[in-house]
Amino acid sequence: MEDLIVQKYGGTSVGTVEKIKRVARRIVETKNAGNKVVVVVSAMGKTTDELVDLALAINPNPPSREMDVLLATGEQVSISLLAMAIQTIGHDVVSLTGAQCGIQTSDVHKRARISGIDTARIKRELADEKIVIVAGFQGVDENRDITTLGRGGSDTSAVAIAAALEAKCCEIYTDVDGVYNADPRVVPTATKMDEVSYQEVLEMASLGAGVLHPRSVELAEKFKMPLIVRSSYNNNEGTIIKEDVKMEKVLVRGIALDENIAKISIFEVPDQPGIAFKLFSMLASANIHVDMIVQNVNRTAVNDISFTVDADELQEAVEVSQKFAFEVEAQKVAFDKGVAKLSVVGTGIVANAEIASKFFESLFELGINIQTISTSEIKISCLIDKERAKEAMIHIHKKFDM
Amino acid sequence: MEDLIVQKYGGTSVGTVEKIKRVARRIVETKNAGNKVVVVVSAMGKTTDELVDLALAINPNPPSREMDVLLATGEQVSISLLAMAIQTIGHDVVSLTGAQCGIQTSDVHKRARISGIDTARIKRELADEKIVIVAGFQGVDENRDITTLGRGGSDTSAVAIAAALEAKCCEIYTDVDGVYNADPRVVPTATKMDEVSYQEVLEMASLGAGVLHPRSVELAEKFKMPLIVRSSYNNNEGTIIKEDVKMEKVLVRGIALDENIAKISIFEVPDQPGIAFKLFSMLASANIHVDMIVQNVNRTAVNDISFTVDADELQEAVEVSQKFAFEVEAQKVAFDKGVAKLSVVGTGIVANAEIASKFFESLFELGINIQTISTSEIKISCLIDKERAKEAMIHIHKKFDM
Repeated sequence: MEDLIVQKYGGTSVGTVEKIKRVARRIVETKNAGNKVVVVVSAMGKTTDELVDLALAINPNPPSREMDVLLATGEQVSISLLAMAIQTIGHDVVSLTGAQCGIQTSDVHKRARISGIDTARIKRELADEKIVIVAGFQGVDENRDITTLGRGGSDTSAVAIAAALEAKCCEIYTDVDGVYNADPRVVPTATKMDEVSYQEVLEMASLGAGVLHPRSVELAEKFKMPLIVRSSYNNNEGTIIKEDVKMEKVLVRGIALDENIAKISIFEVPDQPGIAFKLFSMLASANIHVDMIVQNVNRTAVNDISFTVDADELQEAVEVSQKFAFEVEAQKVAFDKGVAKLSVVGTGIVANAEIASKFFESLFELGINIQTISTSEIKISCLIDKERAKEAMIHIHKKFDM
Repeated sequence: MEDLIVQKYGGTSVGTVEKIKRVARRIVETKNAGNKVVVVVSAMGKTTDELVDLALAINPNPPSREMDVLLATGEQVSISLLAMAIQTIGHDVVSLTGAQCGIQTSDVHKRARISGIDTARIKRELADEKIVIVAGFQGVDENRDITTLGRGGSDTSAVAIAAALEAKCCEIYTDVDGVYNADPRVVPTATKMDEVSYQEVLEMASLGAGVLHPRSVELAEKFKMPLIVRSSYNNNEGTIIKEDVKMEKVLVRGIALDENIAKISIFEVPDQPGIAFKLFSMLASANIHVDMIVQNVNRTAVNDISFTVDADELQEAVEVSQKFAFEVEAQKVAFDKGVAKLSVVGTGIVANAEIASKFFESLFELGINIQTISTSEIKISCLIDKERAKEAMIHIHKKFDM
């Protein structure tokens, strides 16, 4: 009985004719090793950006439905070229668009959710011993209109297809060797993890480690589909992301740094019941994601409220905060872009007091002030001065002997 | 009751962002004048050529099925951009791929035939007062695989959709003002025809006038769908192609010149029954289209056979002819690329001896030798020296006082 493997190649992996040929060889090798293979592909290199530019030149606010019709061509080009490359090597192959391989989605254009996959066509092609190449990032809604899945879309397509086909695993090919315990560009001694749990990767992703989009990891966890992150440039083993990761001595699995955040502070907010709720519901209505929150209770009847947001959403968040401050008669609103969030991640980390104290001690040793602390079951995050964040990351990586 | 108009814009008409915006304005004007409008679009400018080059860089002999997946993206880009441009102007619009608008075809990739159109989706969108933009040149086969229609494909899509929707007419927008009675690049005094019959245009097209692909004209004739050829750069009336064209004094409607041909001669073919049939069935098996045929019966038991082929197919035709010559023990095979076919076209032309004699007299006046003559109900063609063909065309145009 052959294993079924789903492989996903990102835009950089198929960015040129040469790279497409290389990917084709790897796919055929996987097939010839005795597996059934389904491949999910993104658009070539910067294609999506170019298409967006073209659209904006015509309409500064292009309708989402038409944007999806346009963007979906990017992956359609990739799948056909990759299929041609595989056929040259001499293997039967077929490319399928999102519509053709039955990827059903909601009708929310530009960020549709996969609602189901009709696998009949893929299964028929696999039964014919063909390699199946699928366009990632896209599907169709009930009206057969083309939809795209938004951020992390191709990874999500790959995991969803792997789950629907009950594949052995889903391999995510990228330009790094796997998931590292810290960003190797910042921490030269960072090491690749052989195994990591869904939850740990999820925390690292949401903390800015930028490995995989949380959405695809969540989907993989839901279906207990093993994810393997590996390089499309070599044959290294990569990192397996799965549910049960054997416990090791070191609880800290990774260190993540998010520099793309900003802090907003609202000073002297009258201490009335429900006033914080009012602020955060105003921010939620504006679709602003709020992260670390601190409320300093003063001796008087006023509080200071601070919170962090994505740097991209800072301007809007400040506007909402100013509106709030005006309505509740708070004193003033300030913001600070010079902050970063440094986190240590590992299953059960918060139950281990030693880790937290070691983390704080490391920052103390460098004389770095902790502005805010937040914790979850599997991570501890500190808000610190952005200028010293990388130095701190390197120091902590050493301190935890990773 | 609103009229339904189908408009088709070729690749040059939507070749740039500016051109797309201009086409959008014209479409909205047509809609605002009180019509329902369905628009068929080709791929932008040289997009198709670029995609072909990309494919050939990966696979010198790309599989037809994947080629169609690739090429179909060209029109998908055009329809989405054109829809965005129309939406900017402020009109409801929807783009549809060949699959979405139910264009069913045979499964012969790269040159599929339209077998039927399920118009439900287009009609629903039209009922919602939307302008409908359709991707030309493409459809889907029974397996829902993407197909393309080959040469003249977008015109054929437009005519087929117009017929299926029982449109008032099908307007073909191009970069010339309409159908001319001779190629204006060769004959400066050539004039645009206001009306011309399907049959006349068909003859002119097959004789190299290069107005419309015969396939779309044949389809229009079958459904008696009026075709209007006009410029996308101005508001001139263009040429109406329809069934009944009012008879005018001048029988000669147009002059066509085909320089893209070559003559093959096989000398001293033994005079056996069925020997010409053998030659032409060998050529037909090789998919070579043979045009003007002359068989010179000699005094002896051998004949010379000459015929013309498309210049593009010369090499293959010579190979087949040499194989034939070897098998039947003919003397030799020669070819001549220095020939051109000059034709006069008009309904009932062959019944009017005066026209033929005037045609031949014109060539005689210039001292041009006629190598071969062929006639049909509505045209007379002469094979002549290519170097003098344009001069002859100008002279005949004057002679017939067109």
